[in-house]
Order: sequence, then structure tokens, then C-alpha cells
Amino acid sequence: MDTNTDSKAQPKSSIKAVTVFCGSSSGRHPEYLESAKRLGAILASRNIHLVYGGGAIGLMGEIAKSTIENGGQVLGIIPEAMKNVEGSGRESIPGVSEIVVKSMHERKQLLNHHCSAFIAMPGGYGTFDELFEVITWAQLNIHRKPIALLNTRGYFDHLVAMVDNSVTEGFVRPEGRNLLIVERDPEQLLAKMEGYEVPRTAQYG
Amino acid sequence: MDTNTDSKAQPKSSIKAVTVFCGSSSGRHPEYLESAKRLGAILASRNIHLVYGGGAIGLMGEIAKSTIENGGQVLGIIPEAMKNVEGSGRESIPGVSEIVVKSMHERKQLLNHHCSAFIAMPGGYGTFDELFEVITWAQLNIHRKPIALLNTRGYFDHLVAMVDNSVTEGFVRPEGRNLLIVERDPEQLLAKMEGYEVPRTAQYG
Ligand SMILES: [Mg+2]
Repeated sequence: MDTNTDSKAQPKSSIKAVTVFCGSSSGRHPEYLESAKRLGAILASRNIHLVYGGGAIGLMGEIAKSTIENGGQVLGIIPEAMKNVEGSGRESIPGVSEIVVKSMHERKQLLNHHCSAFIAMPGGYGTFDELFEVITWAQLNIHRKPIALLNTRGYFDHLVAMVDNSVTEGFVRPEGRNLLIVERDPEQLLAKMEGYEVPRTAQYG
Repeated sequence: MDTNTDSKAQPKSSIKAVTVFCGSSSGRHPEYLESAKRLGAILASRNIHLVYGGGAIGLMGEIAKSTIENGGQVLGIIPEAMKNVEGSGRESIPGVSEIVVKSMHERKQLLNHHCSAFIAMPGGYGTFDELFEVITWAQLNIHRKPIALLNTRGYFDHLVAMVDNSVTEGFVRPEGRNLLIVERDPEQLLAKMEGYEVPRTAQYG
């Protein structure tokens, strides 16, 4: 597959591996699953490895399956205790490499260690938790990796409004707002992430 | 002391210690500092211990000072590495007990271990991170402690809209929404938290 319309060779991405945070449910609109499927295909076509929480269901399962089906590489990082919850029956997705970890904390550490960028797709509290943690780490200069929101159906509009309000009210610095790359289209999202310079920010809030 | 409202004595709270997440900045409106000050006074008056991240500045410093000034007990839990960042000069607040920890992760564990309820006040990314982590833990049945948002100046209105949208779109279960107690007034917030039954929820999203 070719993702670049005016070049003949597939551009090699500056991003080697991306950690995707997303729901273990599928959402109420087919657009969510389609978006996960499409992002998986794009990652595979650019030879960007997918790193994720390791589930076989919902958006998590869909993006992993799509990446594999399109010839890409997937690493799932799943805590022992959750193997039977998120996987429900725990059919591993064929082709997915797995690391089983002892705790949620170890999972978060490895999800950070094994990637060069983060993408959040729609998800629940767990997704918001993972997302705000890596934003906080960026703010503390623990990592300099781009953080992007795949804004399918405007799912993250309220989150962006919340962060904008935090800036207005004086709890997040304006450069902290710039830590977030937000796009509805996965191609455009990745294009913005390539070579993105993460702004340095002082700790605040 | 008695928990009944029709008693004359100051009601003893069913909550022994509350962990408060909030900004290390003060916000752009005096209402934020006033709200922190008032919450500290109320905690002291009810003999509820304050547990917090240990800073001396911003809302964090204000609530700690107010709790101490009003005769209450305060426990600050601060990572070694942040002692010089959040405290800026690191004047400890006289009267605050301190635990110095090795990592952000250990801090989060102790902030959970030492409390029987959580309150989020306005803050930045760090506050959102801490808040969504304890919500996620409640959803995973790791704890059964009430989680409340002190909604000063409607600061959390966007967050509530975000969570409502997550329910509508199928990424958070309706009972997951009920994990959050939201009030603008600290007295009313605490009244709602007393004896609150945290709904059991299946893991989702
Ligand atoms: Mg977190």
C-alpha cells in the first residue's frame, strides 16, 4: 500500500513504534471500529510497529488484527491478572508478540519503553488514565515523544475543551496545550506526528 | 461524636482521611484559593485527615496550610526528585507530616493507601492523571472509596461532559459515570461523600 500520493517509494517513517491507547469496547458507531482498522493498516504500510495493551476485543483487538492482516508487527503488553478479563476466553491474536507483566504499573512502563510515539483512540477511563499519564511524563521531561489524539467522531472534543479551559484558568501552561496533536483522519494525524518537536514545558499544575 | 444531622455535636465523619489532588498553581481567580482554604477548614473541623502530594505552593500549599491552621492533621507524600520543583525553595509547611518516596508510582500507591476517599480540586495534567487513575482502580474494584470533584467555578464541567459522552458513545458504562460525585460547594460535596456506596462496575473501556 502507498500512503503518499505524490512519491513513488513508500516514505520510511521517523516513528519506529507507536503505543496506542484505546477501548476494549467497540463503541456505539461503526466508525470507531473502521477507524481502528484503518489506523492498523496505515501503521503496517509504514512499517511502524504497534504496541498496545494486548486485548483481543473492542478497538484494541481490531487495531491489532488489522495491523497483522496488513503485514505489520504487533507487541501486546498485558498484566497476568487481566488475561481473563480483557481477552474474554483469551484467544490470543495469531501473530501478536506478547509480554505478560506482573502489574498495571509495569504494563505502563513497558508501553512507554517500547514506543517512540503515542496515539490515543476513543476509550473509557483506562484510556484517559493512560493518556494523562504520558502527558504528565512529557511535562516532567521524562520523555520527548509525540502524543496524538485520533479524534474519531469528535470523541476528544470535550477533552480538548477541558484542556483549553485549564490553560485559560491558569492550571496548564499554553505550551502544555501544544503537547497534544489532534486530528480526525489517521493519515493526517501521522503526518503531523512525523518529526514533531515536543515543546519543552516547565512543570505546572 | 455522632454522624446524625439532628445531633448538636459536630458530626464525626465516616471518612477518616481524604486524599486531595489539585494544582501546584493557584489559578487565575481568587475563588480557587478561597475554595482550597475553605475545604481545608472543613476537613479540620470534621477531624478528617488531609493526605496530599506534599507541595507548599498553589492550591496544594493553600489547602495544607488551612487544614493545619484550623487544627487538622496533614500528611504530605512527595517524591525525592520533586522536592525542589514543587516546593520551590522547599519550605516545609510547619505541622505537616511528610513521607518522602522514591518514585511517582510509590507516591500514587501511598496517596491511595493512606486515605478512605478522594477529592479532586482544579489542577493541570498531573491532577487529571491522578484522578483518572483512581477512577480506573475503582472500576477494576481495586478500591471502593468515594471519588469526588470539587467543581469550583465549574472547572470540571468539561470533564463531566467528556465522561457523559463516553457513556453515550459506549466506552464507559452508565454505572461508571456514577463513580463521580460532583459539587461546587465543599460542605455539600462532603455531605454527599459520607456513607456513599461506590457502585460495582464491570471493567469496560
Ligand atoms: Mg494515570
